Amino acid sequence: MKIDVTDYQKILNQIQQELSGTKVTGRVASYVPELAKVPADKFGMHLYNLEGESFCFGDSDECFSIQSISKVFSLALAMKMIGNTLWKRVGVEPSGAKFNSLSLLEDNFGIPRNPFINAGALVVADVLVSYFSDPKAAFLTFLHELTGNDTITYNETVAASEKSEGYRNFAMANYLKSFGNMKNDVEDVLDFYFHQCSITMSCRELPQAFIVFANQGQLLGSDRQFLTGQQVKRINALMLTCGFYDEAGEFSFEVGLPGKSGVGGGIVAVHPGHYAVAVWSPPLNPKGNSERGMASLERLTTLTGYSIF
Amino acid sequence: MKIDVTDYQKILNQIQQELSGTKVTGRVASYVPELAKVPADKFGMHLYNLEGESFCFGDSDECFSIQSISKVFSLALAMKMIGNTLWKRVGVEPSGAKFNSLSLLEDNFGIPRNPFINAGALVVADVLVSYFSDPKAAFLTFLHELTGNDTITYNETVAASEKSEGYRNFAMANYLKSFGNMKNDVEDVLDFYFHQCSITMSCRELPQAFIVFANQGQLLGSDRQFLTGQQVKRINALMLTCGFYDEAGEFSFEVGLPGKSGVGGGIVAVHPGHYAVAVWSPPLNPKGNSERGMASLERLTTLTGYSIF
Amino acid sequence: MKIDVTDYQKILNQIQQELSGTKVTGRVASYVPELAKVPADKFGMHLYNLEGESFCFGDSDECFSIQSISKVFSLALAMKMIGNTLWKRVGVEPSGAKFNSLSLLEDNFGIPRNPFINAGALVVADVLVSYFSDPKAAFLTFLHELTGNDTITYNETVAASEKSEGYRNFAMANYLKSFGNMKNDVEDVLDFYFHQCSITMSCRELPQAFIVFANQGQLLGSDRQFLTGQQVKRINALMLTCGFYDEAGEFSFEVGLPGKSGVGGGIVAVHPGHYAVAVWSPPLNPKGNSERGMASLERLTTLTGYSIF
Amino acid sequence: MKIDVTDYQKILNQIQQELSGTKVTGRVASYVPELAKVPADKFGMHLYNLEGESFCFGDSDECFSIQSISKVFSLALAMKMIGNTLWKRVGVEPSGAKFNSLSLLEDNFGIPRNPFINAGALVVADVLVSYFSDPKAAFLTFLHELTGNDTITYNETVAASEKSEGYRNFAMANYLKSFGNMKNDVEDVLDFYFHQCSITMSCRELPQAFIVFANQGQLLGSDRQFLTGQQVKRINALMLTCGFYDEAGEFSFEVGLPGKSGVGGGIVAVHPGHYAVAVWSPPLNPKGNSERGMASLERLTTLTGYSIF
Repeated sequence: MKIDVTDYQKILNQIQQELSGTKVTGRVASYVPELAKVPADKFGMHLYNLEGESFCFGDSDECFSIQSISKVFSLALAMKMIGNTLWKRVGVEPSGAKFNSLSLLEDNFGIPRNPFINAGALVVADVLVSYFSDPKAAFLTFLHELTGNDTITYNETVAASEKSEGYRNFAMANYLKSFGNMKNDVEDVLDFYFHQCSITMSCRELPQAFIVFANQGQLLGSDRQFLTGQQVKRINALMLTCGFYDEAGEFSFEVGLPGKSGVGGGIVAVHPGHYAVAVWSPPLNPKGNSERGMASLERLTTLTGYSIF
Repeated sequence: MKIDVTDYQKILNQIQQELSGTKVTGRVASYVPELAKVPADKFGMHLYNLEGESFCFGDSDECFSIQSISKVFSLALAMKMIGNTLWKRVGVEPSGAKFNSLSLLEDNFGIPRNPFINAGALVVADVLVSYFSDPKAAFLTFLHELTGNDTITYNETVAASEKSEGYRNFAMANYLKSFGNMKNDVEDVLDFYFHQCSITMSCRELPQAFIVFANQGQLLGSDRQFLTGQQVKRINALMLTCGFYDEAGEFSFEVGLPGKSGVGGGIVAVHPGHYAVAVWSPPLNPKGNSERGMASLERLTTLTGYSIF
Repeated sequence: MKIDVTDYQKILNQIQQELSGTKVTGRVASYVPELAKVPADKFGMHLYNLEGESFCFGDSDECFSIQSISKVFSLALAMKMIGNTLWKRVGVEPSGAKFNSLSLLEDNFGIPRNPFINAGALVVADVLVSYFSDPKAAFLTFLHELTGNDTITYNETVAASEKSEGYRNFAMANYLKSFGNMKNDVEDVLDFYFHQCSITMSCRELPQAFIVFANQGQLLGSDRQFLTGQQVKRINALMLTCGFYDEAGEFSFEVGLPGKSGVGGGIVAVHPGHYAVAVWSPPLNPKGNSERGMASLERLTTLTGYSIF
Repeated sequence: MKIDVTDYQKILNQIQQELSGTKVTGRVASYVPELAKVPADKFGMHLYNLEGESFCFGDSDECFSIQSISKVFSLALAMKMIGNTLWKRVGVEPSGAKFNSLSLLEDNFGIPRNPFINAGALVVADVLVSYFSDPKAAFLTFLHELTGNDTITYNETVAASEKSEGYRNFAMANYLKSFGNMKNDVEDVLDFYFHQCSITMSCRELPQAFIVFANQGQLLGSDRQFLTGQQVKRINALMLTCGFYDEAGEFSFEVGLPGKSGVGGGIVAVHPGHYAVAVWSPPLNPKGNSERGMASLERLTTLTGYSIF
């Protein structure tokens, strides 16, 4: 089980060559106008390893809306702040259903199946709104510390756009409230949630944030233990089993890495002990995950011959 | 990320000490009389690493009914025989439901969510019944080659016992047939399936069979590529996302290894590149997985500080 | 609220004229070859009132496979034999689902929602198989007494045909058995059930059997109380709420009479205190009910200005 | 099939005698404080026949919160205003589920199963909010015309109380909005809906409103055709199949009349061609219907020997 790191750039080049020409059948997310505007042919990838080396191609420096990828950050922050009490309010099981299913919640008496379906992310958001007097500021501070990059911020246009169309999230939040699993005002929690999802980052920046999950919780090039080893293990486990909605099994089966996707077309994945990697291509497959992004990561672990399995 | 192998026996001893005295609230499976007879206090564990070293404690040499653990073997054999065409008839997604749910099948038009829920295992059994003229003999041959141990065999009493109470499996098989996803006679497929589940193995023998999944498909101490690297990656991925019914997320979250449980109280897990391990303790938690077995494996990855994540 | 009975024949003539020329989009049931053979353009109707008068048109004397209409007879016989203990094993609520859904059973721990979905009819069949030493003979005797017509009998070809394709019913029966809600051998119960469904009757014969439900349980032209008033009320209530699978609401809403349909294209309906009526037209709508039969009965109550509502 | 009207008072007296002493196991609705305050032992009944005669006992002149009974009025008003286009936005099938299930909506792409589950009533409310510039005033006017009683009005305390706890209804309304099946602002629709449910009426007043459904749509003692015969037939059909949530089958089976219940403990039922009747007893059975109310109406149709079946 050896991987020659000098090959990473060669492998990325091959992925770019193989996949940038291929036809995709997916569609760019269009439920909010801001996302619909993004050109479908954007394609970039960036791999960052524990040695601090970077490998990339294409539109890897262009920022895009990270959307649900932000759920990993809010989960990490909530775990850091309130620890295992979080698990009284949200489960750790794959959902076997769409990301925004309300029926699931009904079957589980208001306890979302996991923190990555929308209902679970709303509970996590509620935890942060309870914990911080200014949750939006605290969330940015967390990201700035994690990445050492204090330019990361919200896109207010996207946040407002999500809010104006966010009936299903309003439904979900009120539903959680009816079960007693939302402590704050629905409006406050959703304001935070829509902001969290609006953050823009590039393929270069995402692995800088996620490398901590490949490094047992320690910031790279520092001796700061940002998250505990157990926290990192659990977040990686959740990404693997629940990070791709109703396609988590497929991603695990084809790619074999913990990861998280967003409807902005981004996917970030982690190989613990080795690297973090992000890929961006806006067209989504029917399950809501970047079509070319999934393929790129399958190629990565196939060409390196190397996954967590 | 280093593990000192000389510590394995010490860690196993600690697990035995910590857990053999603890009270379990679970119950031994009783739906067939043969399983109900097994003493609840049996407890054994055996770890086998890629260096060929063995570490164990307790009742690790006693054979027990492997039950659903056999689904990994039948899946591996089917993948070896018919390759990726298998995935037209069975999915790779976690189910979010009980192992024997029929409703799930209804929602998916007769395609079981994955090969480890009962419906999926019946489709895999059907594949083997189609492929081999004597599937029961072929299955034993496969196990004998995999382990180098030709004493492994069926327990006819358990198989007959399962059959006499197997109304739900008869229901499932007929239901699959109604969707056209069972090619052979229901009786023939169930006869094979009940036999497959009746196999008895010990904690010592199971890792000898599963070490191939830690070794990229190569038999240990041989240069025979028994399964391809891709097959092993996929089987490990499926164990991780689907190996514990509606507790797959929990196992992944707490233990962080691919694994598979059976109602006989056995659990086997794999750390790719490192070891295979089996634990046996008959009392089951409410989700149908060995209560003490789950705890033992959680201790193993916590004490070694080391999981796939 | 008056209806001039001299108008019945005129109304039936109008229905024939209006509907026999119309295009139907439905398809004749084809899951068993015997049903698929029936010409799609067969169309007949027969109304029989409490004054003993008959009104009809078209193919009203031709026998067809009554299929699920037989569930009303088996229910009546079971209620007559074991009374209210029946309701411990089957519910009285509309299902909100397809007639052959297994998931429903799962949600209700093996108690079918009502006696007219397949699972419920199988429980009723099981009751009759337990009660009678020769249930098939007893069932015919019941029909002969009810109608005064001892030519009514089973179609063995249809029964055998149903059996050879009846995987879903085998699934259902085994599933009921797994919940302990089937006392006899699955084979025996299904043999009775497939026979019961195979009975052939004409539009003329069906109202002769159903007129008892319009007559408070008394045989017409006799003083024999064949069923109690309470039994008739309950059977009529069940026909209204559950007689048309997932289209019971629609039938109640458009027609406003208790009734029961079968996949052979027959529908029988009852206006308590007034008449029983049968209509036959093989093409089925997507919910499995005779398309032209539904329309005919809607016209009947609209043209008479008169339903139970 | 004859009923001697002179017996009605005797039968009501018998019902009062039989049931006012019995123990009920149900609980008074407590989800809003105003409902929880109502004494559990209130018990009244009032029957009003087409001859204009009244029969009653107990607390039949005391006003209570009609709650979901109001859904019949809003449905009637919407049908009167927009006719059959209503059925594009709401179905007519029994739900087979709880009155406030959201999962049901998910399965039907935002089309509520019927107008009496909460989701359906919200769509009806949305129709009225679209149709009228002042829907609350229009609704009262409708009730005043229907009953000739212009004292009927909203209870603002109850309406406010419902609103403050109405998270599930907010969830439902937002969910409908996400499917495009709610045209107005969620706040406006819910304000109307909570008011509609807050109306207070007595057992005497309710049959004065519902007698129109027993009289083919004509106001009693007038020649005004308030609703068409077809509208009345359909509303009665919907009450029968859907008026009691997941207990509609039971009510139909035991009572055999179209009816509608509310969590305030009221039930109103209609015998077309004969009478309208209301009963009030606050303790609810586990399905949310008045326990003693259900029993009273079962006694009524059993003692008169007379139901629609």
